[in-house]
Amino acid sequence: MKECLSRLRREFHAYPEAGWEEFYTTAKIIEYVKELDCFEILTQKECINESFLRGRDVDAVKASRQMALKNGAKEEIIDALGEITGCVCVFDSGRAGASIGLRFDIDCVCVSESKNPSHAPQKLGFASKNEGRMHSCGHDGHISIGLGVAKFISQNKHLLNGKIKLIFQPAEEGVRGGAAVANSGVLDDLDYLMACHIGFCAKSGEIVINPTNFLCTSKVDVKFKGLASHAGASPNEGKNALLAACFAVTQMHAISRHGAGMSRINVGRIEAGSGRNVIADSAKLEIEVRGETSQINAYMLERVRAIALSSAQAWDVECDIQIVGEACELENSKELTELLDGVLKDDKELKNRFSTVIKTREFNASEDATLLIRRVQECGGKACYFILGADIKAGHHSSDFDFDEGVLESGVMLYQKLLLKLLT
Amino acid sequence: MKECLSRLRREFHAYPEAGWEEFYTTAKIIEYVKELDCFEILTQKECINESFLRGRDVDAVKASRQMALKNGAKEEIIDALGEITGCVCVFDSGRAGASIGLRFDIDCVCVSESKNPSHAPQKLGFASKNEGRMHSCGHDGHISIGLGVAKFISQNKHLLNGKIKLIFQPAEEGVRGGAAVANSGVLDDLDYLMACHIGFCAKSGEIVINPTNFLCTSKVDVKFKGLASHAGASPNEGKNALLAACFAVTQMHAISRHGAGMSRINVGRIEAGSGRNVIADSAKLEIEVRGETSQINAYMLERVRAIALSSAQAWDVECDIQIVGEACELENSKELTELLDGVLKDDKELKNRFSTVIKTREFNASEDATLLIRRVQECGGKACYFILGADIKAGHHSSDFDFDEGVLESGVMLYQKLLLKLLT
Amino acid sequence: MKECLSRLRREFHAYPEAGWEEFYTTAKIIEYVKELDCFEILTQKECINESFLRGRDVDAVKASRQMALKNGAKEEIIDALGEITGCVCVFDSGRAGASIGLRFDIDCVCVSESKNPSHAPQKLGFASKNEGRMHSCGHDGHISIGLGVAKFISQNKHLLNGKIKLIFQPAEEGVRGGAAVANSGVLDDLDYLMACHIGFCAKSGEIVINPTNFLCTSKVDVKFKGLASHAGASPNEGKNALLAACFAVTQMHAISRHGAGMSRINVGRIEAGSGRNVIADSAKLEIEVRGETSQINAYMLERVRAIALSSAQAWDVECDIQIVGEACELENSKELTELLDGVLKDDKELKNRFSTVIKTREFNASEDATLLIRRVQECGGKACYFILGADIKAGHHSSDFDFDEGVLESGVMLYQKLLLKLLT
Amino acid sequence: MKECLSRLRREFHAYPEAGWEEFYTTAKIIEYVKELDCFEILTQKECINESFLRGRDVDAVKASRQMALKNGAKEEIIDALGEITGCVCVFDSGRAGASIGLRFDIDCVCVSESKNPSHAPQKLGFASKNEGRMHSCGHDGHISIGLGVAKFISQNKHLLNGKIKLIFQPAEEGVRGGAAVANSGVLDDLDYLMACHIGFCAKSGEIVINPTNFLCTSKVDVKFKGLASHAGASPNEGKNALLAACFAVTQMHAISRHGAGMSRINVGRIEAGSGRNVIADSAKLEIEVRGETSQINAYMLERVRAIALSSAQAWDVECDIQIVGEACELENSKELTELLDGVLKDDKELKNRFSTVIKTREFNASEDATLLIRRVQECGGKACYFILGADIKAGHHSSDFDFDEGVLESGVMLYQKLLLKLLT
Repeated sequence: MKECLSRLRREFHAYPEAGWEEFYTTAKIIEYVKELDCFEILTQKECINESFLRGRDVDAVKASRQMALKNGAKEEIIDALGEITGCVCVFDSGRAGASIGLRFDIDCVCVSESKNPSHAPQKLGFASKNEGRMHSCGHDGHISIGLGVAKFISQNKHLLNGKIKLIFQPAEEGVRGGAAVANSGVLDDLDYLMACHIGFCAKSGEIVINPTNFLCTSKVDVKFKGLASHAGASPNEGKNALLAACFAVTQMHAISRHGAGMSRINVGRIEAGSGRNVIADSAKLEIEVRGETSQINAYMLERVRAIALSSAQAWDVECDIQIVGEACELENSKELTELLDGVLKDDKELKNRFSTVIKTREFNASEDATLLIRRVQECGGKACYFILGADIKAGHHSSDFDFDEGVLESGVMLYQKLLLKLLT
Repeated sequence: MKECLSRLRREFHAYPEAGWEEFYTTAKIIEYVKELDCFEILTQKECINESFLRGRDVDAVKASRQMALKNGAKEEIIDALGEITGCVCVFDSGRAGASIGLRFDIDCVCVSESKNPSHAPQKLGFASKNEGRMHSCGHDGHISIGLGVAKFISQNKHLLNGKIKLIFQPAEEGVRGGAAVANSGVLDDLDYLMACHIGFCAKSGEIVINPTNFLCTSKVDVKFKGLASHAGASPNEGKNALLAACFAVTQMHAISRHGAGMSRINVGRIEAGSGRNVIADSAKLEIEVRGETSQINAYMLERVRAIALSSAQAWDVECDIQIVGEACELENSKELTELLDGVLKDDKELKNRFSTVIKTREFNASEDATLLIRRVQECGGKACYFILGADIKAGHHSSDFDFDEGVLESGVMLYQKLLLKLLT
Repeated sequence: MKECLSRLRREFHAYPEAGWEEFYTTAKIIEYVKELDCFEILTQKECINESFLRGRDVDAVKASRQMALKNGAKEEIIDALGEITGCVCVFDSGRAGASIGLRFDIDCVCVSESKNPSHAPQKLGFASKNEGRMHSCGHDGHISIGLGVAKFISQNKHLLNGKIKLIFQPAEEGVRGGAAVANSGVLDDLDYLMACHIGFCAKSGEIVINPTNFLCTSKVDVKFKGLASHAGASPNEGKNALLAACFAVTQMHAISRHGAGMSRINVGRIEAGSGRNVIADSAKLEIEVRGETSQINAYMLERVRAIALSSAQAWDVECDIQIVGEACELENSKELTELLDGVLKDDKELKNRFSTVIKTREFNASEDATLLIRRVQECGGKACYFILGADIKAGHHSSDFDFDEGVLESGVMLYQKLLLKLLT
Repeated sequence: MKECLSRLRREFHAYPEAGWEEFYTTAKIIEYVKELDCFEILTQKECINESFLRGRDVDAVKASRQMALKNGAKEEIIDALGEITGCVCVFDSGRAGASIGLRFDIDCVCVSESKNPSHAPQKLGFASKNEGRMHSCGHDGHISIGLGVAKFISQNKHLLNGKIKLIFQPAEEGVRGGAAVANSGVLDDLDYLMACHIGFCAKSGEIVINPTNFLCTSKVDVKFKGLASHAGASPNEGKNALLAACFAVTQMHAISRHGAGMSRINVGRIEAGSGRNVIADSAKLEIEVRGETSQINAYMLERVRAIALSSAQAWDVECDIQIVGEACELENSKELTELLDGVLKDDKELKNRFSTVIKTREFNASEDATLLIRRVQECGGKACYFILGADIKAGHHSSDFDFDEGVLESGVMLYQKLLLKLLT
């Protein structure tokens, strides 16, 4: 199995695609799963709510769709996807039992892969064929684990009761895709949801069963549209989008700290105006807020909105506010982390692979799996997120990133044991 | 007549009252005019539109009303005034003829009169009896001229055709009273309106028939009301009126210059908050805009409004905007300035008194008579404003201000000649 | 002893004095201690560094000094104080031994005492004789405990070795006085320093030996001085202190949050300008910053300073920055809290009085004793702060505040035991 | 001559070069003038003060220099130019007489020329060969007139006394080149300086001898350099260049209007930051100020500087301020406009060509010839600027711009007559 998982991971590594652009990736997943002949494949509205498409660039989507065909994705599968990537593969035993979701994110990072000949993907010939794109966060590994689990299911379909949904989620980078999956309805019947990340804050042989400090965040783009006029002759006839933007920035950064905990605001980028002698007719802000809790994050977001809208009003310009990403805090369901803990302690094979079980360790970043987890919990299910330790060659998102492929088999094995525990 | 006019002026000088507080003054005017027995007296809604009461302090109004009674104003007249000062005295000949308005402003300045024994009002015993109040702009003289004209009308009532309205306007200081008179309807049937100021930019013996550069202006008070909270424990629970105010100030001063001419903005005063460890729940701004034309002034005012409202919205506080004063530019009706010019040239007595007729000279200040003049012109009438020269002892509004009382008789005489010209 | 302590407390309660104005209070303390005939009295530079006088109003100081004489303070003592309140009473045994400081704060709050006849100080006739001033925080009790300890020392002077300094600190309210004492040198030879507060978060019979969450804070006043000019005629000739202030406010509130923990900023009050048609020539801001740690507080303060200075520069106005209060976090020396804990456990009398020993409880406010404690620790000594529980009738700083006087004897007894433990 | 002038104009039209990049243009001018064999050619420091190079892009300069060689400019001339364009051609008669300068600007506009086949330069085959560059302001005509005058001088060198300097100035667009010429010393010995523009506010057959309303202006680029940090983890460790820039913008737009006349400020463009989750470490502002007079413009510029520097200080970032363009108001020397007026009235040929002599007409734009004119006047000489009327096909700076070439011969003829008048 190990070789098979490595082979799969390397195939996906060679064709990395950015968030919402994963047409080749999704098509290959579907092609593989169809072969197994025991899954129903859900796509588009069946697993993605289009009202929650965060930070999706329509032009890039179209280009990537064309590229997928060129690279050999099957036309009938691409047709079935329409313009929406990602899929959910459903195994239904037809027998009573729990309903379990496993979530795997599938997008890459916008980084050019290292050309260093000692970089393993170069040396072994599976480096990115898409310039400016690289699986430098390990999602290629996640896909591979997901397909390994699919194969396991197909081989044990008479044994497993209940229902299993393998969720291949697009656009995790920038925490963009989670909201669309969480609000699609595909999770609402789940009794359990599990998700994990490889690498990160844990080494090969380690597993963190209850990582902490997942930051709630919203990513927001604000555009102001005004009216140009000559800055010397008729400045009053202009509607100054640049000034609206600058006063919005200064007010956003002055949003009050929150008494209940950590909050953050950053306008990280501004671009406005065309030339020095013209009243600027357009401006764009790229904004991020964070909060220690969802409430604090919501407070920050509400204040950002109010300031954007009122700055537009003050300067008589139009304002467009887009949420382009979001994630919330993580609260693992106790029942599931205990189950995980128990399996890791009791199962010999797993004990062998995970010699160090870490209860909690700080994650200190954002993950949109949290939105899926919250949804499942809100619908009455249990959900958890854990870290599968894996030695890495360089930091996540760097061009020299690579990970110990041993984690792939370990990951599949852990999910096998969990499925067997819950569904037999 | 000269002695009579001086006596009247000094009586009013001794009891100066600030804008909207002229109860004693109005009562004494009415008492005097009633004696003449040929005028109808209009008060309250008949000559003041209460929707346009600019910069009126209700508490000060009540106190001044009581004081007027104490100082000997007749109770039945004060009762008739209600809480509104000013009056219009209408002479209607019952015969066909033009309808003419003459406007006299009656309020004083909030200045304490000089205690210097060489200051004439002190030496001659008619200095202000109301501490902190002084007729240091010459409106006492204006009242006196108005009453002199009233007497002349009563003595020539069989000679004069048409209709004459003597408009005793409250609250010219701060350009507060004009709007209420202009919008009351009392001017709408006038064929002619005339108004003047004594002193200012012209000496005894001079008259300026077409003064220029009257500044359009609006005076605005903005109050923000928020919610206090503890700045350490729960800053986010406050609604910060101080921040709303400061962001309003910074945005107001950034209102674009106008391509068509001079504009001005000044937030001259701010006061907000109660203490350093409390999120401020209240703030007040005192604002002034100006424009070379009414349009420019209106542009500035509209921008101030939009910024005040949107700053309130940005910081989730309430906002109250009050116009507390306004004046517009002056455009004298050519027909009237030519009439004035002609009378001054042709009449021997007038030539004697006004040896120097100045066509134009810059006024460089604001006057709310401009609102009355614009109203008359909009209704199809003619209107003008002129400067009656008078030597002054010190600048207008200073505590040593005094003027050459010779101007009183000259003023009455000029109006006599004009009335005779137009109504016989 | 109980009656004596109550009597003392009530005498001080009747003559409350605000921070830096405690002339009567200091004189009475000195008068009492001199009678005991075994203390050296330090005043002025001996215990107050005049470079660190925070938030001191010179006019109020002078008035209070006169009032103290009128109320019967001894003239020779007032002369000795000069214009500086507070004193340190030093007992030196002349024998080897530790050097111990005990700190008692002596100022009152600017609150008018309740006139309610059921309010004990009214009922029993010791209510404040100084209108607008009230010992509504319990510092009258602190003084009383301090004098009780002084009496104990005088009665046991042959028993006690080493040196004891009783520090009667002015101006704790607004965290104003601590810095001047901490930087005077009077603490630098201490091996131990102890301070406490009565009431607060603990009831009669309770004692909190290691209260937490003392907020670091700096209180800052910023004044801008510009140049007035006519807002219509020559706005450019003015130097706009109001605008400088508003841009300072907006920038201060935009100071970045700190990655290492809680920070706060509040401009709680602004007042600027004289009238709407004048470019404002003066402005004043009342500001407060806080930080979870001294470093974070220092970061906030440094940013406030930089913004104040640069806003002045931007608008060509002068800027005056005054620190008017400061406090830091509390880190009790472990050795001392353990000593305290041990004494409370081992001593029967104390066990009787303090039935409940609380290890930690949140203080959630600021205290300038923290500055004294930090100083002693920096000089190599040990220091701690604790809460002497006492039932209170109403919240600290309210006009109905009163406390269970039983705490006075308990407090003196605790210090007695500690002194005996450390100095015999 | 007419054909010769047209031919020259069209040659330059085909190779338009932007400001500071006019290597081909300058080389061709020098080549032509050298042929005439009576001029000394001044380049680099002889006519350009490198401390006043406004708005010059070093990379573009280098590229353009290479392109000039490729297009056939003589290598020895390009070598002589170094990296500085423009030249002054000096005819010195060796005989006593006045010293006269004529100024011709030589740069093009960054506009792509119309591809419309009916556009004359397209139809006649002399359209721009440099994409994105076009002589759409008529400076190609100015060069042609200058060379026509050079030819006339060479043909009349025994007749003309004194000295003549033909000043071929780079970079008039954006008012960038004038300051470097004005401060080079090359003008300081001139008794007379004349400059003109073709087209603009006057038609063929018209000449405006004293155009008015030249706007004083300064173009300023401000760059802020801060320090990036992670917006979530350690926002306080960043030095926020974006916030410094936004607070600079808001303050700049709030610079007070000027009592003495029209002023303008516009930040027309801002770009800052790299991404939403990073504290921005760089920002750039493109700014323009204007004033009715040099003093007002200087006031605006001084305020912009102060605000830029102090915003940098407030946010602890570095600040770089570059003046990238400047022009002042025009005050033609009365003696010269009268001379011009006289020649136009007296000379038959000129009367024929210029049927309409317009005394004043508003220019309503900026021109850096004003800096040369002011310099000459400051050094004791006389100087003037006039408009040579010419029908135009489309507005200056538009891609369809073209002008009536008849103006070329008229322009040369006018200069001939003036030179003969002044130097014979």
